[in-house]
Amino acid sequence: MTKDSLRVAMIGTAFMGKAHSQAWRTAPHFFDLPLEPRLELLVGRSPEGTADRAGRLGWEQWSTDWRAAVANPDIDVIDICTPGDTHAEIAIAALEAGKHVLCEKPLANSVAEAERMTEAAERAHASTGAIAMCGFSYRRTPALILARRFVEEGRLGAIRHVRAAYLQDWLRDANAPLTWRLDRTKAGSGALGDIGAHSIDTAQWLTGQSITEVSATMRTFVTERPERAETVGLGGRGDEHAPKGPVTVDDAAAFTASFSEGALGVFEATRMATGRRNANRIELNGERGSVAFDFERMNELEYFDGSGADPDAEGFRRIQVTDPAHPYMSNWWPTGHGIGYEHLFTHQAVEFIRAIAGEAPASPSFAEALDVQRVLASVEASASDRSRATPVERPRA
Amino acid sequence: MTKDSLRVAMIGTAFMGKAHSQAWRTAPHFFDLPLEPRLELLVGRSPEGTADRAGRLGWEQWSTDWRAAVANPDIDVIDICTPGDTHAEIAIAALEAGKHVLCEKPLANSVAEAERMTEAAERAHASTGAIAMCGFSYRRTPALILARRFVEEGRLGAIRHVRAAYLQDWLRDANAPLTWRLDRTKAGSGALGDIGAHSIDTAQWLTGQSITEVSATMRTFVTERPERAETVGLGGRGDEHAPKGPVTVDDAAAFTASFSEGALGVFEATRMATGRRNANRIELNGERGSVAFDFERMNELEYFDGSGADPDAEGFRRIQVTDPAHPYMSNWWPTGHGIGYEHLFTHQAVEFIRAIAGEAPASPSFAEALDVQRVLASVEASASDRSRATPVERPRA
Amino acid sequence: MTKDSLRVAMIGTAFMGKAHSQAWRTAPHFFDLPLEPRLELLVGRSPEGTADRAGRLGWEQWSTDWRAAVANPDIDVIDICTPGDTHAEIAIAALEAGKHVLCEKPLANSVAEAERMTEAAERAHASTGAIAMCGFSYRRTPALILARRFVEEGRLGAIRHVRAAYLQDWLRDANAPLTWRLDRTKAGSGALGDIGAHSIDTAQWLTGQSITEVSATMRTFVTERPERAETVGLGGRGDEHAPKGPVTVDDAAAFTASFSEGALGVFEATRMATGRRNANRIELNGERGSVAFDFERMNELEYFDGSGADPDAEGFRRIQVTDPAHPYMSNWWPTGHGIGYEHLFTHQAVEFIRAIAGEAPASPSFAEALDVQRVLASVEASASDRSRATPVERPRA
Amino acid sequence: MTKDSLRVAMIGTAFMGKAHSQAWRTAPHFFDLPLEPRLELLVGRSPEGTADRAGRLGWEQWSTDWRAAVANPDIDVIDICTPGDTHAEIAIAALEAGKHVLCEKPLANSVAEAERMTEAAERAHASTGAIAMCGFSYRRTPALILARRFVEEGRLGAIRHVRAAYLQDWLRDANAPLTWRLDRTKAGSGALGDIGAHSIDTAQWLTGQSITEVSATMRTFVTERPERAETVGLGGRGDEHAPKGPVTVDDAAAFTASFSEGALGVFEATRMATGRRNANRIELNGERGSVAFDFERMNELEYFDGSGADPDAEGFRRIQVTDPAHPYMSNWWPTGHGIGYEHLFTHQAVEFIRAIAGEAPASPSFAEALDVQRVLASVEASASDRSRATPVERPRA
Repeated sequence: MTKDSLRVAMIGTAFMGKAHSQAWRTAPHFFDLPLEPRLELLVGRSPEGTADRAGRLGWEQWSTDWRAAVANPDIDVIDICTPGDTHAEIAIAALEAGKHVLCEKPLANSVAEAERMTEAAERAHASTGAIAMCGFSYRRTPALILARRFVEEGRLGAIRHVRAAYLQDWLRDANAPLTWRLDRTKAGSGALGDIGAHSIDTAQWLTGQSITEVSATMRTFVTERPERAETVGLGGRGDEHAPKGPVTVDDAAAFTASFSEGALGVFEATRMATGRRNANRIELNGERGSVAFDFERMNELEYFDGSGADPDAEGFRRIQVTDPAHPYMSNWWPTGHGIGYEHLFTHQAVEFIRAIAGEAPASPSFAEALDVQRVLASVEASASDRSRATPVERPRA
Repeated sequence: MTKDSLRVAMIGTAFMGKAHSQAWRTAPHFFDLPLEPRLELLVGRSPEGTADRAGRLGWEQWSTDWRAAVANPDIDVIDICTPGDTHAEIAIAALEAGKHVLCEKPLANSVAEAERMTEAAERAHASTGAIAMCGFSYRRTPALILARRFVEEGRLGAIRHVRAAYLQDWLRDANAPLTWRLDRTKAGSGALGDIGAHSIDTAQWLTGQSITEVSATMRTFVTERPERAETVGLGGRGDEHAPKGPVTVDDAAAFTASFSEGALGVFEATRMATGRRNANRIELNGERGSVAFDFERMNELEYFDGSGADPDAEGFRRIQVTDPAHPYMSNWWPTGHGIGYEHLFTHQAVEFIRAIAGEAPASPSFAEALDVQRVLASVEASASDRSRATPVERPRA
Repeated sequence: MTKDSLRVAMIGTAFMGKAHSQAWRTAPHFFDLPLEPRLELLVGRSPEGTADRAGRLGWEQWSTDWRAAVANPDIDVIDICTPGDTHAEIAIAALEAGKHVLCEKPLANSVAEAERMTEAAERAHASTGAIAMCGFSYRRTPALILARRFVEEGRLGAIRHVRAAYLQDWLRDANAPLTWRLDRTKAGSGALGDIGAHSIDTAQWLTGQSITEVSATMRTFVTERPERAETVGLGGRGDEHAPKGPVTVDDAAAFTASFSEGALGVFEATRMATGRRNANRIELNGERGSVAFDFERMNELEYFDGSGADPDAEGFRRIQVTDPAHPYMSNWWPTGHGIGYEHLFTHQAVEFIRAIAGEAPASPSFAEALDVQRVLASVEASASDRSRATPVERPRA
Repeated sequence: MTKDSLRVAMIGTAFMGKAHSQAWRTAPHFFDLPLEPRLELLVGRSPEGTADRAGRLGWEQWSTDWRAAVANPDIDVIDICTPGDTHAEIAIAALEAGKHVLCEKPLANSVAEAERMTEAAERAHASTGAIAMCGFSYRRTPALILARRFVEEGRLGAIRHVRAAYLQDWLRDANAPLTWRLDRTKAGSGALGDIGAHSIDTAQWLTGQSITEVSATMRTFVTERPERAETVGLGGRGDEHAPKGPVTVDDAAAFTASFSEGALGVFEATRMATGRRNANRIELNGERGSVAFDFERMNELEYFDGSGADPDAEGFRRIQVTDPAHPYMSNWWPTGHGIGYEHLFTHQAVEFIRAIAGEAPASPSFAEALDVQRVLASVEASASDRSRATPVERPRA
């Protein structure tokens, strides 16, 4: 009756590493899993830092050599939590070594990299059965899964409007420090790839439609920032006396989008929206109904039944997505006892493990994440070409 | 001690006519006015309808001849509440006859018309002292005036984001009837001019910045509609058995915008946002603070103090803009006893009367409304040219 | 086709007088009324003040002699907007003179007075057909009428909980001045009669149940206040240097209540709830559904369908009670364009006029208002007797 | 550098057992703890069930003999998650055996039991240094700790109103099954002890004041229920065909309360408030400010600054209590990434461990929990005596 183990090596020790650690540890205690994940090996950059993080985050062993991890026959999963410029190399090596790969988003810093990763994933799956998945964690939000169910049930009818804004404010202070997230060579882009990518993925997944064309504007409000930080992490403060270096990514991106079945999208991503801490918002308006979501109230979904069935009593209803009937919630707490941010990662771990066991599709696949990358590229192309409507280029099926 | 009268003739008897009538009647009972408005003459199209409306709306006399009203020496004010295609002709004639003119928005159906009207207004003002004002009534919302005060006080610092969405849903049903608002020759444009114009005016007025460039997309989701209505008015139902005619305006418009001092704007106007009845929303994010407003809760303003003065206690505060210290509110009811939609028109009447008496500026002037028209034109131009970033063309100062 | 006039004399010129004036003036322009109200005569205390107010509020004539008004054959309606200690004398005289009477709430300062008024109303109605109504204006809120409709339709099933709190804060400052509202001889009681009376009336009317027993606590937090005001009106500021006089009414009252069909009520009324400007709230929880209302958002009703019909999508829905299908709203503005506080008084005028014309019941009648008075008396009795559960004493039917 | 272990035995395997397990497991990965908790031994009733739960919840060993656990020298902590009727016996035995004890709330089913437990705790602490703490987990909510900080900082001034309602609806269906929570011999009381106890504890702790007197009403709406369940857990459904047994506890309790420094409290606890899933609400109104909280939005605190410092901009602000500066939050995720229900238990584990290490006070102590028990007893006494105002009896200090 003992389950087979799934031995995980995680590359990256920061914010995402912390979230993934808690997920691997927690998942088996709340979900019936076909395999038992083990926090086997943590890979970081510096020996001291990594040793310390391994103890703190609960990993059996640590190392500073991701290549050794990839080559290690006692590892089943490579979990990539590093900045985007390293994803392609690690993921491809891991897939070629027959490992299952969970890779944080955005999948890569360019379409070309993402294409190579997707090809590697498909090759590996065909030859070794390896599973590759991208960490669009917001797909694991019960309220958004419920929204998708409503779309699939036809409650909204044909969707006309997609309104997505991902608003943060941790860069509002012009003295916030210059970190890797503001360096194009590391991060690929700024608000666009960091948080706008989530909106794009969520929008396509929720609607079941592809974005076919975009018209975009990007903006960098603060063009240089202190090169040293006083306090680290998202929201850290820069050292005012430090020299300044150039910000090479966007602070904000906004674009309109056309969807494959006719919906009109409006997207905005920014890290300068003073007072909006993590407002990952999306609203769909359909012929027969609407849904609206804001991650700042992640346990709630607003739903409007516009079918005309009860005309006196129409109104957006605040569904507390905490009932046993709601996605994942029967595994957690009684109704009204909400979950938090980290639970998305636990759900992600659950789905990844189920996919490895063949119980569920491996979605979002690298191919799906590549598709987001194509949209990101079109957004950047449009923004560089005076916002001209720019098709999302996809190979013919 | 008796005040001089201000004898008003109103052209138009429908939704706006009803609102203006209540305003003229109510203003003197709640505000100390330099002149006493009199509901002298109502001008409509059909004799029966107009007679009936004059009785209902409380006008002394009625007529079907607007030219006679304009020529009538016993009339001081021409109040234009007709569809946009008639504004220029009536307003120019009235101004040339030395009347004060209050004209509903959008000022006209084209920049050319609006330019002629503005020239006429400036000429008339120089020669007869006539006052011309455009009915951007949302500027009269106490919560928005408070927001503007906050901007002027520097509470927000430099503004980076303008996020405006005007969402209605009275056209969501594909069988809603084909009315003049869906006819380009009457209405000029659809959601864009009808409600997007409000957002543009509000955004420029609140920020004190001009929109310099736009990139736009427009969409008509339902391209033909029944030519006969079962029930009339906004939200009326079409006769399913009636023949259908073409919708010649936009159902929705979305655009990004650059502001003169660097803010990035995202605008959306639609009459198809199922469940959003009259969500005229605007949010400004500045370096030091933010404000957010939704007309569906018109007595409230959300304000975020991001100055860092009280870091533990930062949060959007819901200001009930009903205190005596708030704009116009000492004239109404005790704190917490809100006002409604029609009060905007009363405030507008008050400001118009004060402008005539020389106590206040005549704002929004025709020139300001012309500026909105220029932005509308640029939006349409951009939408026709694959969303290309399109400057707002203004004459050199 | 000209309608008969209904000639109104209003006694009282302050807050309520202002609201009633606007109602009499506005009602005929928005509603088809069987009679045409005329603002004939305003009665105040001082000649100068009353003359001024008559001009401002729009009354034809003014006087300082309410007895003459009552005796005047050219007056049809006596509208009583004075403090509670004068209601009985004026109302009874008016009814005996054959006038219709609209009397502000609470009906009287004691059960005995209210009984005499009710007897006078019933006698007058039998002999002259006079109509008497009490001004529980919150009954005229469209959202609350919709809530009542939901109760009557059985959407809530058997009601178990009534949760009513009327929270204001205009007395939070210990230096707010000593006005008539803080004087037991004028006002009868404090928060209890002023605002708690509204909650009691609303609760009984919404549920269709009577309060049968109460257990109450009353509290005066600030026992003396300045006898002179710097600024007048609700929320005025006292003169710190003025001598202080005793507050002889409650600042707050709280009580539990049993309803005739088994519901459990919790009531709270206070004028010291810092930050709550006019939060007149009521929530009903029934076997099959719930409704919740807060006057600070008077155009909204929250409704929860707990019938189990759509278990995945249960949630309190925010109904914007602004659709043409909603009570009174087809007479006002398009959906989403809300109304304000004063509209309640317009609706009240409409219902009073309809009752006079025999088109509608005269409700809330003096008998209904007397019933509220009986509950108020039981609340005071319980509070005086260590909160002991105290039955509401009513004569046998 | 290895930390000493803290070996935990937990008695009880259901809802609370699941929450505590996750807390013991998670705490050391997010907090620097002086001792390392180990999930050593799970004690349940049936061998099969307990073995299964031990595997699922992550405990090293299991047993069905709590007495053996208490006697086991390899156990440091006894964590009591059983129904209230067993608390006294287990806790006293554990304390006498020198164990640290964490006991779920309410501390006991009677004041007498709670007194014996408190004496045992004090004796044990004196002799062995054992720590005893009661599981009022809501005290661990960052938003409520922030509220308390605001009270302590004097931001509210003297507190006048405490308004606490704990509203659930899992018993709204008359066919919900008869579980131990509806059996007086097991649960002590119903809504009162289950959830009202939380409100009482929170109110006393937040205000720093004691409840001195109460006037109460209790109600059982559904007096018998099916003795067999179709689905188990909170919100389970009863078998309609099963015989019915009597409900011996309250469905709802409501009471007013006097606080030691003059505040007036209104309390309500119910499990029949249709649509309110877990609305644990509390609001304090003070002379200078107010705070309001609802557990359904547990990451938010509403705060009103009524000091008059910024009169135009007063309003309840929605503080997202997710900033690093907020209690516990620097240990979790970046701002705007909220936490969930279970995190309260992690915080509780952290505080318990710190108390054992002498780094923090052991609060809520058994003495504090006994005080809640005294209030509960007074509530029941008042409800039995026609709601008469009933002092909370406490021994002289």
